[in-house]
Amino acid sequence: MNAPVSVIGLGNLGRAVARVFLAAGHPTTVWNRSAGKAAELVAAGATSAPTAAEAFAASPLVVVAVLDPAAARDVLAGVGEAARGRAVVNLTSGGPDDARTLAEQVAGQGADYLHGAVYAVPQTLGTDDSTVNYSGAAHVHEEWRAVLDLLGKGTFLGPDAGRASAFDMAILAGMYGMLSGFLHAAAMGRAGGIDAAELTPPLVSWLTGIFPALSMFADEIDRGDYATEESSLDMNRSGLATILRASASLGVAAPTLQPFQDLVDRQVAEGHGAASLARVVESFGGGG
Amino acid sequence: MNAPVSVIGLGNLGRAVARVFLAAGHPTTVWNRSAGKAAELVAAGATSAPTAAEAFAASPLVVVAVLDPAAARDVLAGVGEAARGRAVVNLTSGGPDDARTLAEQVAGQGADYLHGAVYAVPQTLGTDDSTVNYSGAAHVHEEWRAVLDLLGKGTFLGPDAGRASAFDMAILAGMYGMLSGFLHAAAMGRAGGIDAAELTPPLVSWLTGIFPALSMFADEIDRGDYATEESSLDMNRSGLATILRASASLGVAAPTLQPFQDLVDRQVAEGHGAASLARVVESFGGGG
Repeated sequence: MNAPVSVIGLGNLGRAVARVFLAAGHPTTVWNRSAGKAAELVAAGATSAPTAAEAFAASPLVVVAVLDPAAARDVLAGVGEAARGRAVVNLTSGGPDDARTLAEQVAGQGADYLHGAVYAVPQTLGTDDSTVNYSGAAHVHEEWRAVLDLLGKGTFLGPDAGRASAFDMAILAGMYGMLSGFLHAAAMGRAGGIDAAELTPPLVSWLTGIFPALSMFADEIDRGDYATEESSLDMNRSGLATILRASASLGVAAPTLQPFQDLVDRQVAEGHGAASLARVVESFGGGG
Repeated sequence: MNAPVSVIGLGNLGRAVARVFLAAGHPTTVWNRSAGKAAELVAAGATSAPTAAEAFAASPLVVVAVLDPAAARDVLAGVGEAARGRAVVNLTSGGPDDARTLAEQVAGQGADYLHGAVYAVPQTLGTDDSTVNYSGAAHVHEEWRAVLDLLGKGTFLGPDAGRASAFDMAILAGMYGMLSGFLHAAAMGRAGGIDAAELTPPLVSWLTGIFPALSMFADEIDRGDYATEESSLDMNRSGLATILRASASLGVAAPTLQPFQDLVDRQVAEGHGAASLARVVESFGGGG
């Protein structure tokens, strides 16, 4: 018989997780803070628990996917003793400190904590396009690997519960940069009479072509050596100035690009004009 | 015999253009404002013109690739009558207004103007990975197509000299969004003990997975209908708050992401929390 599993939180991610478990034949108990989200899953064979504590009591493996770290702490605090002996796998997005705090809280309740950062949209969860980074209790990852791998290709990043989150938050920061760039591009296109549907395929193609440059910049950042023949701050400063002027001439604001230009300008003013654009990483702080 | 061509400006792009022409057997004349850039090309068979006017006089097709639109205007103004009858293809990055202004100036000199926006890094120019969008004088594009296609797959976007630039500037704004996100991500990774080389491949993989969402957002933007089940402003607001908190806890500033969060917050404050993240495009202005 397949191991029973419980899913706490039935937003987009939690519902997708429960569907994957149900499809694989695991007895699946679900709970959501507000009612009404469970109906579709119950129709597919899930059991809806009336309280979070009952959902924890139902299964040795409990997957948590709620709105934010505060909600995860509240739910765990609320189940009290019902968490004892459980393997808690928290997929809720949060910062490294959030994961470490929750790992301590969960340990205090006599349970094991594994943090998971999911790289999938709900539609691709459980497919080959889905990966999950874990950190925290290694034995939870080992013991439940077959079940967790249903969600996507899993990688264990180490015993620090916060490491998967640090990785995750960095990647999401990168994603929002791309999204803000896309929305700025779409606004400029619209102002210039170009549909977003016309603009997006060449934009995607161009971004894909830039990916190798990210690896080059990554190497420069890791070495702390910003000498370059490729993409100097001076060259990018000139390009950014042209883009910002074009944006302004189209009546489009640059609320995210102007501050980036300011970072580039500051690097140039400090005498680094011939250095690589990657040197802007130093302006973000947190340096090693 | 292959038609003679001239290349004005020997930065990374201009040198790559000249190399492509030389490799295809075109008699190639080159000129650069400061000396010393032509040596490698002369060794490969190019003729170095002592003045820009002589470079214009040498060939019916003149490709301009200089630092910025102001430099392009200066060079053209400087050659005066030598431009008469020439097909001027300007690959210098600039805004739509810059291209239109230069097209007028060139027309006043008795020459034809075609603007080209190159989507290639110098290393990939002339390969299958290289494309060029043109706008302006259609007959220049038609007459010189075989030569221009040496640089990459060409597309003619219409007679408005500024259209290729509007397209280009929008795509470059999108690129800098991605680059700013990458640098923020790298700073967060570094502060969390994760090398940029370790972070970049999963980031690239995640960004690639987000591309279909850009098409979805593009469709919402073009329809002006932001109803969504997928990626609401409320959901993104919560995610962004988590990322910004994580960034701060790592000692990493968010000079570009904080303003993006502010745009999202403003949309939510205006009552659009259930709408798609794509609605943020409205905050950039320039609306249709």
